[in-house]
Formats: sequence, C-alpha cells, structure tokens
Amino acid sequence: MARSDRFLKACRREAVDCTPIWLMRQAGRYLEEYRAIRKGHSFIEMCTTSELAAEVTLQPVRRFDLDAAIIFSDILLPLQASGVDLTFTDSEGPRILKPVRTVEDVDKMRPAEPEQGMTYLLDAISLVRRELDGSIPLIGFCGAPFTLASYLVEGGGSKTYTLTKQMMYTQPDLFHRLMERVTDIAIACANGQIRHGAQAFQVFDSWVGTLSRSDYEEFVFPYTSRLFSSLDRSVPSIHFALHAFHMTDLVKRSGGDVIGIDWQTPLDVAWHALGPDRAIQGNLDPAALFGSSDYLHKQVRTILAAARDVKGHIFNLGHGILPGTPPENVAILVDLVHRESARPL
Amino acid sequence: MARSDRFLKACRREAVDCTPIWLMRQAGRYLEEYRAIRKGHSFIEMCTTSELAAEVTLQPVRRFDLDAAIIFSDILLPLQASGVDLTFTDSEGPRILKPVRTVEDVDKMRPAEPEQGMTYLLDAISLVRRELDGSIPLIGFCGAPFTLASYLVEGGGSKTYTLTKQMMYTQPDLFHRLMERVTDIAIACANGQIRHGAQAFQVFDSWVGTLSRSDYEEFVFPYTSRLFSSLDRSVPSIHFALHAFHMTDLVKRSGGDVIGIDWQTPLDVAWHALGPDRAIQGNLDPAALFGSSDYLHKQVRTILAAARDVKGHIFNLGHGILPGTPPENVAILVDLVHRESARPL
Repeated sequence: MARSDRFLKACRREAVDCTPIWLMRQAGRYLEEYRAIRKGHSFIEMCTTSELAAEVTLQPVRRFDLDAAIIFSDILLPLQASGVDLTFTDSEGPRILKPVRTVEDVDKMRPAEPEQGMTYLLDAISLVRRELDGSIPLIGFCGAPFTLASYLVEGGGSKTYTLTKQMMYTQPDLFHRLMERVTDIAIACANGQIRHGAQAFQVFDSWVGTLSRSDYEEFVFPYTSRLFSSLDRSVPSIHFALHAFHMTDLVKRSGGDVIGIDWQTPLDVAWHALGPDRAIQGNLDPAALFGSSDYLHKQVRTILAAARDVKGHIFNLGHGILPGTPPENVAILVDLVHRESARPL
Repeated sequence: MARSDRFLKACRREAVDCTPIWLMRQAGRYLEEYRAIRKGHSFIEMCTTSELAAEVTLQPVRRFDLDAAIIFSDILLPLQASGVDLTFTDSEGPRILKPVRTVEDVDKMRPAEPEQGMTYLLDAISLVRRELDGSIPLIGFCGAPFTLASYLVEGGGSKTYTLTKQMMYTQPDLFHRLMERVTDIAIACANGQIRHGAQAFQVFDSWVGTLSRSDYEEFVFPYTSRLFSSLDRSVPSIHFALHAFHMTDLVKRSGGDVIGIDWQTPLDVAWHALGPDRAIQGNLDPAALFGSSDYLHKQVRTILAAARDVKGHIFNLGHGILPGTPPENVAILVDLVHRESARPL
C-alpha cells in the first residue's frame, strides 16, 4: 500500500497494511532545521509567510516516514484575521491585547473569509500539496470554539479559566454570543483550508477539559456540533479534546470521523466508550519520547495491543510533541509503529 | 447533631443530619483578614510561626459555618525540614533551588521527624485544637509521594512534567529511590500531625493526573499504598488525586477512607466507580463561586442530587478555592449545602 493511502483509509475505518502515524506539532522546535529558520524570523512571520510555513511543514516529512503532514499555523490566527489584536511572546506564548468583555468586543470581530484575511495560509497549503505531490496527505486544522473563546476572554493561556467561567456563569448570553461568533470564524477558516487542498481536518479543543459535563452540554456542545456539521464533508474530520475523558460520549456526539485520545485514557477503554463507528487517534505520552529505547518499545507495544481490535487506528501522541524531544527517538517511534503493526491485507 | 460530629461521622459513612462541608484552601488570599496578616509576613513566615498559622487556620471558621478546619501549612515544608533548599516566590510559587538529579541528592534528604524539624506545625495544631475546643474537628495534611517527587525533580510546578517522566523512563531505579525517600518523609509528617491532634488526615496528589494508568501502577501505587497503610488508623484518611478520573480504581486501591473527587468527574459516576465502601468528598468547580447566585444554587442542587444515595458525602470544592473568590458566595454556599441536604435522622 502506498504511504499516500494509509492515513485517509484509517480515517474511514478501511483496512490498511500497517497503522499510520503522524505527530501533533511534528513541525517544531525539537528540529534543528526548524530552529535555524526560527532564528531569523518571529513565530508569527513563519506562520504568515507562505514559503516559510510550507518549508517548516515539510521538514519532519523529509526526516521521518510519517503518513501525513499538517500545515504549520496557529489556532489563533483566524482571530487576528477577524480583527483581534494578537502578539506572540517567546516566554508567555500568545497574548490577546484587549480581552473580550462586552457585546461590542464580540460584535466587532469580523467573520473573515480566509480568502481575504488568510491568503498566506491558503498559499502555504497549495505549496505543500505541490511539494508532497500525492506522497502523503496534508491535514488542515483550527481551534474549537471553546478553546478560541477562552483565549479571547483570558487574554492568553490560563490554569483555572476563572474569567471565562465567570462570564459563562454570570453573563451566559454574552458567552453564547461569543461562542456563536468564534464558531462562524472557525467554520470559515476550516472550509477555506479544505477548499484549497487540505485532505483531512483536525479540530483542537485544547482547553475544554477544564469544564464539567453539564457546562460542556450547555455552553460548548451546540457550537462544536455546529462546527462539525458545517465542515465540508469531502474530507475526514478529527476531533481532539484534551483531558476530556469524563465526557468522551459528548465529544463523540458533537462530531468527528476520528476521535483523538490523550495519553491518560487507555486506548481500549476509549474505544469501548466510543463504539465502533469512529476511528481513533492516539495516544503515546509525549514524554515517552524522552524515555529509554526499552521504555518506548514497551509503550508502543502496549498501545498497539490496546488498539488490536480497533478498526481505524491512527497512531499519534496524546498531545503535542515537546520541545527538547530527541529527533532520533521520533525516527525510532515511526519505524516501530509501522513494523510492529504490519499485517497482511 | 452538633457540628463537631458531622464531618467525622460522614468520613465513617455513618448517618448525619445534613451534609458536612469544608473547602480546600479555605484559609487564604480571598479573605481580607488573611491578606492583612500576609501584608506583614512572607508566606513561609506565616506557615512556620505557630501563632500566625493557627490564626489563619481559624479565620474561615469564624466567618462561615464550616464543619472542619484544616491546618494552614504547605505540602513542601516537610521537604525543607529534610534539608531541601526551598523558597516561595510571590509570582512563581515554590522553587526548589537544587532539583534532585542523582542518588546523592536523594540520599542527603533526611527522613526528619516533625518533632524535630516541624515543631511550628505541631504547636499550631495544638493552638488550633485549644481554640476550637471541640466545636469542629481539625484536619492535617501532606503531599502524596508523586507530587512531592515531581516538585523535587522539576524544581517547581510544571505543565508537562518532562524532567520527572524522563527520570522515570530512563533512570527508574533513581526515581524509585526518590519515591521511597519522600514516602518516608510523608509518613513521618503525617503521623506526627495525628499524634499532636489532627483528627482527620488528607493526602494531596495534586499532579498525579499527568500519568497514564500503567505509569501510576509501576511508579506511584506502591508508594501511595505504603503511605496510606502506614498512617495512624485512629483518624480517618482522605485521598485527593486531581484529574485522576482515568484511574479512580487505582486511587481507591492505594488507600483512603474518603476519596476526593475533582469537579470534572460527576459525583454519581465516581460513586459507582468507587463502590459503597468509601466515603466521597467533592466536587463543586471552584470557579462556580464566581457565578451568579442562580448558577451556584443550581450547581449545589445538582451535586447533592448526584450524591443522594451516597453514604458518606462530604461537600467540598473539586480543587482549592481560587484567589478573588467573593467571600459572600462562600457563606451562601455553606448555608445552602446545610439547608438543602437537611434530613431527619
């Protein structure tokens, strides 16, 4: 089977010759060729210069036998295209200069079409598709409504999401209005990427694990469902909600052909909770790539054994690759997954 | 029923007239009388000056009809008493000046008896017991082995626990040696508090949720089990492991008469997973105290309804109270829980 087919077939729960693998944040700081480019450019320059974004997207694909590429970008850029003032600091990560507090703050966010405000992203997708030339598929991505909304309210990352929850609990109408708006933005950004060549699409709900089930049902489910049901159905969709084991069923119901699983949830347990009508993606602890070769082998075998009966397993980490990860361990991982999962078709 | 009996009876799963309540970090920055003392003293001075620690312990008890007090201290102080260099910064929280890297680093930590190195804590317990005069019981606490070990390896808090996991995965013997040592320290600190008057004892495993089940089984379970089985059995024990829903059964098996539940896990789901032979503590989202009165009422009723069949429910937050929490909402919460859960004996 050509590498080109493995990932998309697994997304559709069709038979594959071995388990496909790609890694969240596979383009990143752990690669010296990434750091070499980063030295001369800010993070945001790299994202918004099509040639640089394309180059960085391709770096891990040249090094490792990965079964998919993922476009290099950031989940907050569609907000910038909608008029939100955004900076990326080296130490603190992204900062929203004027966090959302009022109806006016919500309403002034334009529901920008990526063809207007994010041509750099669409052009990067075209460049990468041309370079890949059908060898492996390219994944597009966006942030889920809650994760986008929480950034907008907190002004950046948070440990406790107190401001976001305070808005939910004291100004529910305002929070719903904000969710409506960011859902529109996410849908436009997603379908723009798919129109311009993304062959699969992943939604990252990185911070939603902070919510209880009842809050998810009330404040998140309607919007994440709308996002998934509005996605161009010509490509498979992946739904990754971090630390959401307590509401796996709600995450599944809100959408996604493939459900991403973090490293805390055993894959067989997740599979039983999800049922056979979804493919599953995961779930090695990113820190395992810092382990000894023995430890890494043991963990990979454990995950492949847990996924033995799963139709449609895509190997991945349970969260993004960590800075400082030894690239040689990534090479070992990719080869190990392919070799250990090889099966006659 | 006297307030004095409610909490301890619930810990033993005996009948109570209404659900007892206390709040993790109930003594803290959200109280102006706390901030008034903090203005003149560092955090560590407040912990290590018996009169100040006792005073701060009693502040929330004077304000609210809480069913238990918890001694004001910090989980890292037993490490300091064992010879670890420790500072508390206002911005970053605790810092270990020389993180643990080698066998020598582990071996030079003394298994200090609190009667030698932590008399300030034992004296504070005596002072509080005298002041409380039997009105409500006093809880002692310590950090669980993994949480202590991860602080020692990371040098402070962490998002990813990469250094800790790297040690687990590449130098397992060293990590096990460290866990042995911090378990000894935790046991000594716990039993010292119980000997000197703590009437219940809570173990905080705040960071263990970052681990997969298999890592917990191999690297944590033996030590947390030893801690619980070594605790003075004359008082009930509480085991609080944050974000550990994926291994509730392992947490239970490792010990605790009462299992603390974070706010993400619905209480009835946790109760079914735990079985009827444990009491249960939790689990309001700390952020709910920033909500409207309506929202707070709804959440409290949802939790009490989920706990309807539970024998031995102690109401608490699902994590520590947040700075900035309006004290008037704490008063509303405490009264609401007592009133809504009142039942004929």
